[in-house]
Amino acid sequence: MSVHLRPEEIEAESFRIIEEELGPHNWNAQQWPLVRRAIHTSADFDYARSMVITDRAVAGAIEALKAGLGVVTDTTMIISGMNKERLNRFGAQLSCFVADPQVAKEAKEQGVTRSILAMRKAARDAANGIFVIGNAPTALFELIRLIREEGVRPKLIVGLPVGFVGAAESKDALRELAQEYPELQFVTNIGRKGGSNVAAAVMNAILIQAVGTEPAN
Amino acid sequence: MSVHLRPEEIEAESFRIIEEELGPHNWNAQQWPLVRRAIHTSADFDYARSMVITDRAVAGAIEALKAGLGVVTDTTMIISGMNKERLNRFGAQLSCFVADPQVAKEAKEQGVTRSILAMRKAARDAANGIFVIGNAPTALFELIRLIREEGVRPKLIVGLPVGFVGAAESKDALRELAQEYPELQFVTNIGRKGGSNVAAAVMNAILIQAVGTEPAN
Repeated sequence: MSVHLRPEEIEAESFRIIEEELGPHNWNAQQWPLVRRAIHTSADFDYARSMVITDRAVAGAIEALKAGLGVVTDTTMIISGMNKERLNRFGAQLSCFVADPQVAKEAKEQGVTRSILAMRKAARDAANGIFVIGNAPTALFELIRLIREEGVRPKLIVGLPVGFVGAAESKDALRELAQEYPELQFVTNIGRKGGSNVAAAVMNAILIQAVGTEPAN
Repeated sequence: MSVHLRPEEIEAESFRIIEEELGPHNWNAQQWPLVRRAIHTSADFDYARSMVITDRAVAGAIEALKAGLGVVTDTTMIISGMNKERLNRFGAQLSCFVADPQVAKEAKEQGVTRSILAMRKAARDAANGIFVIGNAPTALFELIRLIREEGVRPKLIVGLPVGFVGAAESKDALRELAQEYPELQFVTNIGRKGGSNVAAAVMNAILIQAVGTEPAN
């Protein structure tokens, strides 16, 4: 019975089932591990069709990690879900300001989401290279504004907010932004789905590729 | 535009959209907030059809919280996703042993998942009332064994492991267990889907009801 597989066999068997059931697809060798892990963490094959990954998304992320740049997230769940051992090999600083007391205070005063102010705070630090958004559409809208109006230039955006109010629209806006900034690298999807679990899975798939190019030192 | 809504209005508007698009359903007043929040966190209406919630699941959880019993999870992501302010009102001890060094060591020696040993360790503590599983089928299978063979009696099981190897089967086994133990209270779903985000959402929906019955002291 399947539960008697060893832990490392469970993941391999999961990937085999995903590939068997999905059949042929057009994702390339850098992209497919991200899509496969998004499906793996959600058991939702929609991601095979709905994800959008720019050509140099994985390469941009690996450059950012090797340059020692930090990773910003919009939820602590993403931080919990990312593989710390792999992140630590690059010494990547992890930040999430959504629970920061100053952010909470200002958000209340201004009547905006904490996610907006958390993104603004993170973007002030030029050492932040990768922005991972798995929950709040307002965080992604704010990051888009910071890129357009304040010259913020992430090396990679993982833009996978979820929900019924603004999530799909924020991801549409991200893809539209790419028309203006063709060098922009991102991993996103079309539609309402997403989440911290999927965002963390995408980052873990990137980290596995990053570690492959950079042996532990 | 929707993103200019105040934070508290975004959730209300999300719930309104979910109810409008789903239409009539048969969930009762205790169950529906759990299902609605599972849909809210995943943007996946499948949960409206696939969830299984026992009659006294919410009541059992509230009793456990009021009795000061603890909450065990199979992932740190669930802990990150739960509302701490509401949990703290009940003084609930939160535990997740999956990253425990002793658990990791023994899992490696025995060639089993860390989730199995983490569940076993958690179940040794009779102060644990609520078991929340959002990732590992092996954790849910082990909890079922502990109930059947070792007399463990959770006040509530949130059984929402996700994936392609054993997840659906572990949830089938949980529902079968209920035939033997009609007093068993659980929140689960049918099929492969689930996840730490959905498990945390279910717990948050329970905590809101629990706080409603127990004003902050």
